[in-house]
Amino acid sequence: MLRIIICAACILGSVLAQEPPGHVSIILLGATGDLAKKYLWQGLFQLYLDEAGNGHSFSFHGAALTRPEQGQRLMAQALERLSCPPDVQPERCAQLRERFLQLSRYWQLQTAEDYVALREDIETRLQQEGLREAGRIFYFSVPAFAYLEIAQHINSSCRPGPGAWLRVVLEKPFGHDRRSAQELSKELGTFFREEEMYRVDHYLGKQTVAQILPFRDRNWKALDRLWSRHHVDRVEIIMKETVDAEGRISFYEEYGVIRDVIQNHLTEILMYVAMELPRNLSDPEELLRRKLQTFRALRSLEKGSVVLGQYQAYGGQVQKELQKPAGYVSLTPTFAGVLLQIDNLRWEGVPFILMSGKALDERVGYVRIVFKNRAYCTQSESHRDSGKSQCQPRQIIFYIGHGVLGGPAVLVSRNLFKPSLPTRSWQEIQEMPDLHLFGQQLADFHAYRPRQERDAYSILISHIFHRQKNSFITTENLLASWDVWTPLLDSIAQEVPRIYPGGASNQHLLDFEQEGSQVVFVQREVEQLVSGPGPGPVPGDFSILRSKYRNSSLVSAWPEELIARLASDIEAAAEWAVRHRGEFHLALSGGASPVALFQRLATRHYSFPWGHTHLWLVDERCVPLTDPESNFQGLHVHLLQHIRVPYCNIHPMPVHLHRRLCVEEDQGAELYAKEISALVSNSSFDLVLLGVGTDGHTASLFPHSPTGLEGDKLVVLTESPAKPHQRMSLSLPLINRAKKVAVLAMGKRKRDIALLVSRVGHEPQKWPISGVLPTSGQLIWYMDYDAFLG
Amino acid sequence: MLRIIICAACILGSVLAQEPPGHVSIILLGATGDLAKKYLWQGLFQLYLDEAGNGHSFSFHGAALTRPEQGQRLMAQALERLSCPPDVQPERCAQLRERFLQLSRYWQLQTAEDYVALREDIETRLQQEGLREAGRIFYFSVPAFAYLEIAQHINSSCRPGPGAWLRVVLEKPFGHDRRSAQELSKELGTFFREEEMYRVDHYLGKQTVAQILPFRDRNWKALDRLWSRHHVDRVEIIMKETVDAEGRISFYEEYGVIRDVIQNHLTEILMYVAMELPRNLSDPEELLRRKLQTFRALRSLEKGSVVLGQYQAYGGQVQKELQKPAGYVSLTPTFAGVLLQIDNLRWEGVPFILMSGKALDERVGYVRIVFKNRAYCTQSESHRDSGKSQCQPRQIIFYIGHGVLGGPAVLVSRNLFKPSLPTRSWQEIQEMPDLHLFGQQLADFHAYRPRQERDAYSILISHIFHRQKNSFITTENLLASWDVWTPLLDSIAQEVPRIYPGGASNQHLLDFEQEGSQVVFVQREVEQLVSGPGPGPVPGDFSILRSKYRNSSLVSAWPEELIARLASDIEAAAEWAVRHRGEFHLALSGGASPVALFQRLATRHYSFPWGHTHLWLVDERCVPLTDPESNFQGLHVHLLQHIRVPYCNIHPMPVHLHRRLCVEEDQGAELYAKEISALVSNSSFDLVLLGVGTDGHTASLFPHSPTGLEGDKLVVLTESPAKPHQRMSLSLPLINRAKKVAVLAMGKRKRDIALLVSRVGHEPQKWPISGVLPTSGQLIWYMDYDAFLG
Repeated sequence: MLRIIICAACILGSVLAQEPPGHVSIILLGATGDLAKKYLWQGLFQLYLDEAGNGHSFSFHGAALTRPEQGQRLMAQALERLSCPPDVQPERCAQLRERFLQLSRYWQLQTAEDYVALREDIETRLQQEGLREAGRIFYFSVPAFAYLEIAQHINSSCRPGPGAWLRVVLEKPFGHDRRSAQELSKELGTFFREEEMYRVDHYLGKQTVAQILPFRDRNWKALDRLWSRHHVDRVEIIMKETVDAEGRISFYEEYGVIRDVIQNHLTEILMYVAMELPRNLSDPEELLRRKLQTFRALRSLEKGSVVLGQYQAYGGQVQKELQKPAGYVSLTPTFAGVLLQIDNLRWEGVPFILMSGKALDERVGYVRIVFKNRAYCTQSESHRDSGKSQCQPRQIIFYIGHGVLGGPAVLVSRNLFKPSLPTRSWQEIQEMPDLHLFGQQLADFHAYRPRQERDAYSILISHIFHRQKNSFITTENLLASWDVWTPLLDSIAQEVPRIYPGGASNQHLLDFEQEGSQVVFVQREVEQLVSGPGPGPVPGDFSILRSKYRNSSLVSAWPEELIARLASDIEAAAEWAVRHRGEFHLALSGGASPVALFQRLATRHYSFPWGHTHLWLVDERCVPLTDPESNFQGLHVHLLQHIRVPYCNIHPMPVHLHRRLCVEEDQGAELYAKEISALVSNSSFDLVLLGVGTDGHTASLFPHSPTGLEGDKLVVLTESPAKPHQRMSLSLPLINRAKKVAVLAMGKRKRDIALLVSRVGHEPQKWPISGVLPTSGQLIWYMDYDAFLG
Repeated sequence: MLRIIICAACILGSVLAQEPPGHVSIILLGATGDLAKKYLWQGLFQLYLDEAGNGHSFSFHGAALTRPEQGQRLMAQALERLSCPPDVQPERCAQLRERFLQLSRYWQLQTAEDYVALREDIETRLQQEGLREAGRIFYFSVPAFAYLEIAQHINSSCRPGPGAWLRVVLEKPFGHDRRSAQELSKELGTFFREEEMYRVDHYLGKQTVAQILPFRDRNWKALDRLWSRHHVDRVEIIMKETVDAEGRISFYEEYGVIRDVIQNHLTEILMYVAMELPRNLSDPEELLRRKLQTFRALRSLEKGSVVLGQYQAYGGQVQKELQKPAGYVSLTPTFAGVLLQIDNLRWEGVPFILMSGKALDERVGYVRIVFKNRAYCTQSESHRDSGKSQCQPRQIIFYIGHGVLGGPAVLVSRNLFKPSLPTRSWQEIQEMPDLHLFGQQLADFHAYRPRQERDAYSILISHIFHRQKNSFITTENLLASWDVWTPLLDSIAQEVPRIYPGGASNQHLLDFEQEGSQVVFVQREVEQLVSGPGPGPVPGDFSILRSKYRNSSLVSAWPEELIARLASDIEAAAEWAVRHRGEFHLALSGGASPVALFQRLATRHYSFPWGHTHLWLVDERCVPLTDPESNFQGLHVHLLQHIRVPYCNIHPMPVHLHRRLCVEEDQGAELYAKEISALVSNSSFDLVLLGVGTDGHTASLFPHSPTGLEGDKLVVLTESPAKPHQRMSLSLPLINRAKKVAVLAMGKRKRDIALLVSRVGHEPQKWPISGVLPTSGQLIWYMDYDAFLG
């Protein structure tokens, strides 16, 4: 009901948006370049064919830096190739092309005067022919470095008169990273308003890509249930090329595969797949808002999110085309496989794989959504008919082009649902039923292809003309994408890509797989063996040393063994406590050392009695609990989110009350103390995990702290010499009431303090750690060999 | 290192367990029955062959109710068939069989005197031959109803003398449900000690099943990383039969497929796959403890956890074999597909599918562990070699027998790892590389089969003799399994199974799939259309009525629409609050009505700003927060566990302090009030969701409550007329400070109070709901048509 109303509204909207007819001047900058020759003139001709009958009049201005005679000639060559759609008769087509040629003119645009001349020419013609000006389109098909100068000329000399619109069309690259993109946008922003700019990502004009959102909308009933982590197993967004970068090295060497196609084309497609479906597809603002929401939910990319390759011949091509010496090594990736994850409730845990490369075994582009298979087929394989079996793969494929299908298509596994596509423009594929693709036969899919293939540029040019801004990249959208990719690009700048031979000989060399939140090549390279510690007697690889330290037990080992032992000891303590008292009260410290412990507890200790464990904080920094600096946040990221502790058993320190941090009168410390008294019998924790600082602090109890080292208070506010200064901490007397205290010290940095503390007595004012001595409990020191043996 | 020590310990243990040699008497009860003829005599003969040379002497006593002459003859027939392993020469075998026959004797065991006679005979022989008695084995191959009488006789008349052991071997069925199993166990327990009883599940003697735990242990290094929800996609435990139940109907009609094979065989296999690997496989106590842990983690089964079928001919067979009239209908399932889920950190979310049926298309049994595929293969399918590609399925299969392989086998996909199996008893399968199974070719697996196939019974008999208790079902184990299955069996007692034709014609009729936590047949049956409400003017299906009620807004609709609207309204309020104030404070009520709301919020509102939402409770029952009666628990189950609210934003009511519930002096209400004051600005919630009781109560504010209806207190303890009586509740004055209050009332039961409240004024003492009127906020009533229109 709601949806119907909305649709009626948008039809109405588009009727209202009709402008009174007038004259439109289209200026193609870079009119003699490759892109113009191959696509843009044809796109403009198509626009003319589609729109000339609808009231508007047109003039087309090809522009370049070339002098008039030569430019004229080159442009004429480009225009000779113009063709009509198959349904136009040849004679009619010849007529139409002739008219289009009459409306087209070449301009050398170099100086300010050239632009003034252009403007005057347009105005004169308008006047002569008594035409109202509707607007002007400037299509920038020029290198990015020329943008600003041209933009300035247009803005100062070539804007249309009042009441007429200006549209400038920009082609990528839009910068090289976040900073350069923002700079370029800012500078362009001084000449054009946001709504005047149309940044082209020509992939958004490709018929299948343009169909993704309408497909999701049209098939909403079937997809609403399926389109989430509950049903989607993975999404692959793929663009494979067989060609290499030869002849384009000077461009490619600066960009590489991620900047060339992944940051823009594949990322935009990802958005179409993953974003929340706007209520109104033709509302560019809602579209943008939904896109930006999804950009924000993308998990940050890091070095491990990507695998990189470079085809073998690339190095030689760089040396040749850029005149580099023989020893020159380029690290530019020509292949990348990226794992993206979206941290929202719809997509959490679903891998989005973006992959592109040159010199691969086939040319193809597609988006593949693979659904989880939750069926059990009782009949044995030999007795089943494949197509409709729920045990066959279930997938939706937006086939962008090339490959075995040879053109755009939309495929939906027959065991999913029969999709609806606009029958005016899409038709079912009947032929090639045995064609094998994506593990199935074509006959196993509901398969559709466009009735008529249309070039992406002609579609986008039509959208520009109709002010349909939703297929273009706004500044915010562009920067959001660079926000995602820039940190990754920075982190991999010095990565050595894997060299691959190219073509079918790549075999499995570039296959990659997800491992946790990272991707790695399936075929690992032989890893450099890390040489062990120097000569001299060192403890055996796996031995654990048990000894005494400050008259208490000491466990010492290499880091991994130490953490494994500590984790096991904690589990044993937990099991004991739960068996004997029904619950286990564990107080944990923050910082770097316990991270490995948390991770081990999360991934190896599947039978830990978390359901009966209470988690307390030993100390906390006075920052919001969701701040990455917060100890609680670290605990959450590395442990809590992976295990199942009842909510009410988790006790973050209340550092954030009344919207302010650790203010004495908010009584956060008292609140925590009360909670402890109420829940922990005798305020005696079962286990307290402490660290030790190089200054001898422990918990957030620093040398000479006026609070917490003695007295009745259980929980105190303290001051740290390091930022953030304000802290909340359990007090030493409270810690010493624990049944067990474990002190963890790891790394060479801790060597000096470990040595010092081994010698001093009970001097908590000077070295708070020396005050740790449970009244009736047990103290164990866990030190790795670096800390203990130095 | 640790593992090596342990293994050394167990070898030592088994050496120490060796007894001095002596005489063993084995009494086979039911010596002339089918099982005895087919397997048990052969198993005893095998035991004799294996052990006679090791010092012990033996005598074998076949017993039955049949009179001596006839029994003797029948037993002789059974013994004629005894065969030796292939490596024994025929003459030698004839000798051995002759000796075995000399040691065997038939007994009619019916009366107490018969048992006394047996004992006296054994004792006399021992004395005559000067043998020390080692022990006696009684093998019960008799119907379960005869167990107790026999047990009594053995206990009173046939126990061996001091220093010798007694072992009784019991065959399923072990009861019919939890109660009968417990009864039987209890009664048997009056005659035998737990360690004297060996309950046979012969599946545990099958070579592949017996290999599961040793395989997990031997391949621990490779599997440790893989054996969890992070890597396992699903587990299938399957036992398909082609035969039907003809000739066994009188037994089958009482048991059905779940009691016959799923509650026992398949469940035990499930345990072997899912349990935590014991450190010491030969320690039956640790094995049992680990098993019981896993049983406890099994999610309760409900009607929706299973799909049921019955082969078409079954009905006729029941009528014929049980002499039932023509119209008699049996609901006994002969096919069941079950979804089990294990709620622990290792297996959470991994579906375990147990399936068995008669009259299916093939006879086969297997366990199939399918791993998640997280690889992307860059090369197109046509260019890959299959076996090692990470894009091929990755699976481990414990092939129990029959099927295309024709016998037991263990298969591991080559793209996983090369497993280690004991080469003494297992060998690689070299033949049939092209055989197609589980979507791959046999050559794609590392495939192993036993060097020599051994019957399950002879293996188990050897275990009984060697006191290896870990392949037998202890009482605790048995009851734990019935704990899982009995509620399901009760709930499906009246379910009508789907009728299937049998054999290959079943086609897709029995395929089933997971839907949430349930399973359904893939081919749905045409569902009976539910007739709509009676004649007369009713609101249209999807319309929503907006009106006034008690001078406030009213939204009324059919339940689904109403909940959808309320959920949308809450999301809108949340978005607004977060946009304007950065956070959203939502107080929720418990009870039944909000469940649908919680579920809708969890599964449809993917862009709800949960990250900035604080969740408070309107009221709480004074029970532990993990009690199913707790409002917080309901909130957790239906909402919290599905969304991502930061821990610190969740505020359960502190009803459980100092290990006691809602004690005034523990000041729980004051604690909650403090938390509200500290975090909610002006203590004014953004939205409070209330319900209304048939007595006019709201929150946990009941008519004439001395607290909470007025006064300064924000949070109060109250008394409910219904159990549990004690409650904690927000007070009316606090509720009325909210910016928005929504009252949800659904169902015919609320009609009377809705009508009444529509007429009364402000009388909170009589009808607390009438006191809800936000001071400066907005009140909206959400009532479904049943509540509002009656």
